[in-house]
Amino acid sequence: MKMKRQNYRRTGSCTGAVCVGWNAQNVMWAVTQEIDEELGTDYQERLKSWILMAQSNSLTVAGALTDAKGDRSLKPSQQPDPDTNLRVTGVREDGIVIRGAKHMICGTAASQEIFLLPGGIYGEADKDFAVACVVPRDIEGLTIVEATRPSDRRELEETAHVEVPDTGVTQAYLLFEDVFVPRERVFMCREYAYTAKVIQFFTANYRACIGACVAGQGDVMIGASVLMARANGLSAKTFAGKLVDMSVNNQVTYGLGAGACAIGSRHSSGSFFADPLTAHTNKVMVATLPYEVKRLTQEIGGGIVETGCMPSYQDFSDPEYGHLLQKYLKAGEPSAEARFKAARLSEWLTIGSGVPGCMHGGGSPDGAKLVVRFATPMEEYADFARKIINIEEEMPDPKKPKK
Amino acid sequence: MKMKRQNYRRTGSCTGAVCVGWNAQNVMWAVTQEIDEELGTDYQERLKSWILMAQSNSLTVAGALTDAKGDRSLKPSQQPDPDTNLRVTGVREDGIVIRGAKHMICGTAASQEIFLLPGGIYGEADKDFAVACVVPRDIEGLTIVEATRPSDRRELEETAHVEVPDTGVTQAYLLFEDVFVPRERVFMCREYAYTAKVIQFFTANYRACIGACVAGQGDVMIGASVLMARANGLSAKTFAGKLVDMSVNNQVTYGLGAGACAIGSRHSSGSFFADPLTAHTNKVMVATLPYEVKRLTQEIGGGIVETGCMPSYQDFSDPEYGHLLQKYLKAGEPSAEARFKAARLSEWLTIGSGVPGCMHGGGSPDGAKLVVRFATPMEEYADFARKIINIEEEMPDPKKPKK
Amino acid sequence: MKMKRQNYRRTGSCTGAVCVGWNAQNVMWAVTQEIDEELGTDYQERLKSWILMAQSNSLTVAGALTDAKGDRSLKPSQQPDPDTNLRVTGVREDGIVIRGAKHMICGTAASQEIFLLPGGIYGEADKDFAVACVVPRDIEGLTIVEATRPSDRRELEETAHVEVPDTGVTQAYLLFEDVFVPRERVFMCREYAYTAKVIQFFTANYRACIGACVAGQGDVMIGASVLMARANGLSAKTFAGKLVDMSVNNQVTYGLGAGACAIGSRHSSGSFFADPLTAHTNKVMVATLPYEVKRLTQEIGGGIVETGCMPSYQDFSDPEYGHLLQKYLKAGEPSAEARFKAARLSEWLTIGSGVPGCMHGGGSPDGAKLVVRFATPMEEYADFARKIINIEEEMPDPKKPKK
Amino acid sequence: MKMKRQNYRRTGSCTGAVCVGWNAQNVMWAVTQEIDEELGTDYQERLKSWILMAQSNSLTVAGALTDAKGDRSLKPSQQPDPDTNLRVTGVREDGIVIRGAKHMICGTAASQEIFLLPGGIYGEADKDFAVACVVPRDIEGLTIVEATRPSDRRELEETAHVEVPDTGVTQAYLLFEDVFVPRERVFMCREYAYTAKVIQFFTANYRACIGACVAGQGDVMIGASVLMARANGLSAKTFAGKLVDMSVNNQVTYGLGAGACAIGSRHSSGSFFADPLTAHTNKVMVATLPYEVKRLTQEIGGGIVETGCMPSYQDFSDPEYGHLLQKYLKAGEPSAEARFKAARLSEWLTIGSGVPGCMHGGGSPDGAKLVVRFATPMEEYADFARKIINIEEEMPDPKKPKK
Repeated sequence: MKMKRQNYRRTGSCTGAVCVGWNAQNVMWAVTQEIDEELGTDYQERLKSWILMAQSNSLTVAGALTDAKGDRSLKPSQQPDPDTNLRVTGVREDGIVIRGAKHMICGTAASQEIFLLPGGIYGEADKDFAVACVVPRDIEGLTIVEATRPSDRRELEETAHVEVPDTGVTQAYLLFEDVFVPRERVFMCREYAYTAKVIQFFTANYRACIGACVAGQGDVMIGASVLMARANGLSAKTFAGKLVDMSVNNQVTYGLGAGACAIGSRHSSGSFFADPLTAHTNKVMVATLPYEVKRLTQEIGGGIVETGCMPSYQDFSDPEYGHLLQKYLKAGEPSAEARFKAARLSEWLTIGSGVPGCMHGGGSPDGAKLVVRFATPMEEYADFARKIINIEEEMPDPKKPKK
Repeated sequence: MKMKRQNYRRTGSCTGAVCVGWNAQNVMWAVTQEIDEELGTDYQERLKSWILMAQSNSLTVAGALTDAKGDRSLKPSQQPDPDTNLRVTGVREDGIVIRGAKHMICGTAASQEIFLLPGGIYGEADKDFAVACVVPRDIEGLTIVEATRPSDRRELEETAHVEVPDTGVTQAYLLFEDVFVPRERVFMCREYAYTAKVIQFFTANYRACIGACVAGQGDVMIGASVLMARANGLSAKTFAGKLVDMSVNNQVTYGLGAGACAIGSRHSSGSFFADPLTAHTNKVMVATLPYEVKRLTQEIGGGIVETGCMPSYQDFSDPEYGHLLQKYLKAGEPSAEARFKAARLSEWLTIGSGVPGCMHGGGSPDGAKLVVRFATPMEEYADFARKIINIEEEMPDPKKPKK
Repeated sequence: MKMKRQNYRRTGSCTGAVCVGWNAQNVMWAVTQEIDEELGTDYQERLKSWILMAQSNSLTVAGALTDAKGDRSLKPSQQPDPDTNLRVTGVREDGIVIRGAKHMICGTAASQEIFLLPGGIYGEADKDFAVACVVPRDIEGLTIVEATRPSDRRELEETAHVEVPDTGVTQAYLLFEDVFVPRERVFMCREYAYTAKVIQFFTANYRACIGACVAGQGDVMIGASVLMARANGLSAKTFAGKLVDMSVNNQVTYGLGAGACAIGSRHSSGSFFADPLTAHTNKVMVATLPYEVKRLTQEIGGGIVETGCMPSYQDFSDPEYGHLLQKYLKAGEPSAEARFKAARLSEWLTIGSGVPGCMHGGGSPDGAKLVVRFATPMEEYADFARKIINIEEEMPDPKKPKK
Repeated sequence: MKMKRQNYRRTGSCTGAVCVGWNAQNVMWAVTQEIDEELGTDYQERLKSWILMAQSNSLTVAGALTDAKGDRSLKPSQQPDPDTNLRVTGVREDGIVIRGAKHMICGTAASQEIFLLPGGIYGEADKDFAVACVVPRDIEGLTIVEATRPSDRRELEETAHVEVPDTGVTQAYLLFEDVFVPRERVFMCREYAYTAKVIQFFTANYRACIGACVAGQGDVMIGASVLMARANGLSAKTFAGKLVDMSVNNQVTYGLGAGACAIGSRHSSGSFFADPLTAHTNKVMVATLPYEVKRLTQEIGGGIVETGCMPSYQDFSDPEYGHLLQKYLKAGEPSAEARFKAARLSEWLTIGSGVPGCMHGGGSPDGAKLVVRFATPMEEYADFARKIINIEEEMPDPKKPKK
């Protein structure tokens, strides 16, 4: 978590190229131990060899969970197109063949390897989808299509060096067309009964820690807002209340994630996993509070950080009328260009390519609420309440729908 | 208000090219009457002639209020650069000469005329900035620079016809270099004492009605969310609670604006003006609730409506691997292309060029809160409270800072 | 609405003894006209005679809608106990006999008459519950039990004159045991098909106007907070931001209600009814924003306005140690007693008998959201969205649950 | 924290009689070590002896921090009445004499001892107020006046055993009239330079852990809401979304507190202290989220859990008409009495004597925000932002107010 927040502050980007990959390694370390113990497989040993190799070669490892999914009301094996979720299409002596797609995968552009995990909890009918393995990014049969972002065309323009930060979040679609994965890189193959553990462990840690990235982005928004206040000729103190509200929001997602970790527990394999109730609660915060931080960034920055309220740098530096824009965009001690850049930064952070996927990244808040629902011992709480007010009769849910 | 909401639903854009212009005409109708009555000028007659001309020629009239402002801690006449706010630099028999800039002006691209109003409340030292007049968009000496928006480069691409709505909000910087405005088009010139009325009347009506535009945009977001639910293979009913929350937010800004109008009053000139307390309260809502509607749009739509989670249409239709993206992006009955377009629409509405300036458009929420503060009779309320609990002693604010 | 807000400011209480009664008269004026026109009855004439009588005698008229309801999953006629909802048990030449209960009825303690309306929308099986009539408060067979409130025992103590406002909201349970109502006081009897109109008209007007009462209470909370700031030795300006937030919340419920009225329409009978979508939206605000105003009242007031943080006035004036409490409770210019009273007022308004029923008064917010849901033309909005992004294929809800 | 949450669930009350006392012991363990090391005193040894004595005698120890304070714009030594804050009036060979008051002190009614701490950060002029010591509750010269709560009179009624939980939060005013405290019970006496440390350590731990009490109360509110749903004849599942929202709110304050502890650090004395930024952020949450949980409790419970919507138990059991109330209050499987009790519990928890002081308990949210402000490295964040967008010029706050 500390690394994620620090990285965001320094790069203005999430650590997509390592965070899912790291998490996947910890999760599979625990799950492979469970599989091996019960089924006599040697997955953990394979994983250990691969991790040691990756570490000694300083490989950057992205991770991929989310499948294309298709029709959300159908299970993978019920889909009209069986490829809709990544699946094993063949098992050979020396490895397996996989086919399908992983969507919206962060940071593969900056990674050497991609760790693949099953994207859901599967029963026996869906066992072909229970697959975990690791592949090099440039493996035969894998096509990677980078996603696009609202303001990413600016990065291709000549003025990019002035008005776009030299950083950014990447996300990609991974399209697997019968890709062969050697045996020693496979850590789960059709052991569907363990997919629930993968999802449980993965989401707990991921949703605890994701609060740190968005806090780091929020810190940069505080900084950008301080700059904008000054670029507008005002003291940052003018906006102390709003800056504090931003800091409070940032610290909620960070501290709550730290709490989820602290309340978590150690798996017998040595991996640590965050407390699910607290971690999923944090995912709900992550899907809410950063939006408020963005709103405050736009409020502090003034009109020119809002969408559509700034000329392009091409106009700003136009030989004919650029001097007029520069004249009129200067608003205090800082230069017109500093104001231009600071406004661009606030725009980029709040409504441009700098916006990370807080809402569905790491899963949707509705999915998190489902976990909160089942992790909250409501009957136990009802019993506490009953005892406090001395109700002696049982009060179960009504039997069945009447009428 | 009704027109603004209906237009937004039908065009996906605000009515920037008429709304400020209309408002300006109503405001100046009242203010010119006051000036004429007290100073014996003939401004209202000039305005009347011009309005009749504009109406009989069906001219579209944008309006411009916001000056470049410069250093926000200084008054216009104190600015290092006297042009920072639009000002009168010369008065001739046949008209006036103006110089300066109006920033972030909506809809001039679609207008024939631009109605200029003073951007602040001025005292005698700033009388040169007290100017109201109307100019044709193509007047000599006026340079208009359109602002840029995060995703507007997409509109220039070949695929624009597929992935970008054929509409949009425009905003511009108007740069006046000694522009001559004929006498009959000038409706205020240095009568600084009436600038307070201009601002008061203008903001009341503008901030009452702005709730209707954002409600209209919110209606489109509801529609886009219904489409996305179905494109994902789900019933829109799945998200009934969230759709209702969106509708509630839309109706608050719309209905509160209608309330401001209903509580408002008729000026002796015949113009109607909304109740300031209610109108400025609405501006606070407009700077808050649409952000929540956008958040819900992203929540309902799923990952692919979030930033950076969709490939470009160029990739989608690529001859080599486009079929794979199409295969994996199909998620229910609707075609992959329908899903692609619906997701693009949600993105465009929430984080692309379709986002209107709710925060500072029509002035900042902090400015609105200042009006709320002074329009709230706090001492009167304190007296009601004192009477209810029978406190007979006076309870004024403490005399002065001690120590 | 204006009266409701003004009354609250002056009395610290809602106008329970007239508001539902007035509304009932307007609603039944319209509904009786519809019944008479279609069924040839003479209800409106009866109502007119009674209203003229009531007005010439200056009678105060409470109103009663909510039935005991019993098991919420069953209709009235399905309840184990048929009395659970108020019903007609007999029809005679000269009048009707009614039986059952109306719960949580406001202001009967201050009224001479009570106007009874059906509490739900009924089909033929429930026609006995479709009854509207008016009864004097002291009618034979009617038992009225006043409800209790957390701090109401204080009103019975000797110190009541000092520490409790001489006002308050009353609510009662009305228990009807075969009460005879003369024919000329009956305005609906078993015409179940018109109960939907009663509910629709009643809730629209009630939920539009309820925003004015809670705004009035909020105004008193602003006043009490100004007093508390000063009683604590501070300037009210210290809390300007919070006081403005309170005022904004108050004005939202008031102005939105005014908007609902303004957008509303005139019934052919001459009654006016508020716009349902806006009115029910306001009910959602009324169930939310006043809680925030209370929270801010407690925040501004400091610890002693919170629950359990003030001694009783009996202790405050105790001959032995009362002088010590007075010594230590004085905090600025105002006397210790003024601070005591101001703190009591804030407590009474936020957590004592002065709290009105914002949540379920006039119906629950979930009920209001149901109306919002059906009053929002979601399919129409989906079509607007489809048109904006040029999706030509139809996108209906998926046919049926798969699997 | 775990104990605090568990206790609240089991008792419906905070652990006022131990939580501040425990915290005080940990804080003074660290502070006395610092004083002793620098000034050569023997405070820690005295404290150790007293703690060992208290533990071996199983003494319950309350704690007291908040002074009467008087005029909030003046320092203690500037107050017209020097007793306004607790102070040392005499130092003797064998002990000290103290005078003044501690306000709103929790749990002394259930304690044998009271640990007194300085209530603010003091400079040399205020050194007499820098005092920490422990006194038995029944010490000569100490008068304790219990505060009152809105619904506490019910506890004195005959029906208390039915309608009021047999528990509750207590808070008191402690009035010290020249109380002698023996030397061995004094742990700070005029060492004003260390009061900042006391406040810093105390508030960090207190505000981290207070999230656990309010989470515990929130758990009981979830339980009470489950009971109310069923008492109304509905399944608790009907309100799953709201119950989840309550659980999310509870877990935020709990988990964020746990995070503050986890990020905290170990003092050289062995005491652990929570991270200030995170702990004070939690205080802001504690002053906000529980209000939302209460609102939801009232929303789920229906009208009868709101204020003023339930008859008294005296009426409920009245020989003449009580049977009618019982008949009409029954709404599902549970008995009328169970529904009555469950509704009373929800009322008691949300607007009765069961409400704890979330707003100012442990200090006000504005005080906490002040800490957040100074604990947020805004300049550092501005530098990160500047670096990301490549602004090379310095951008400090404007020099000085112009004009």
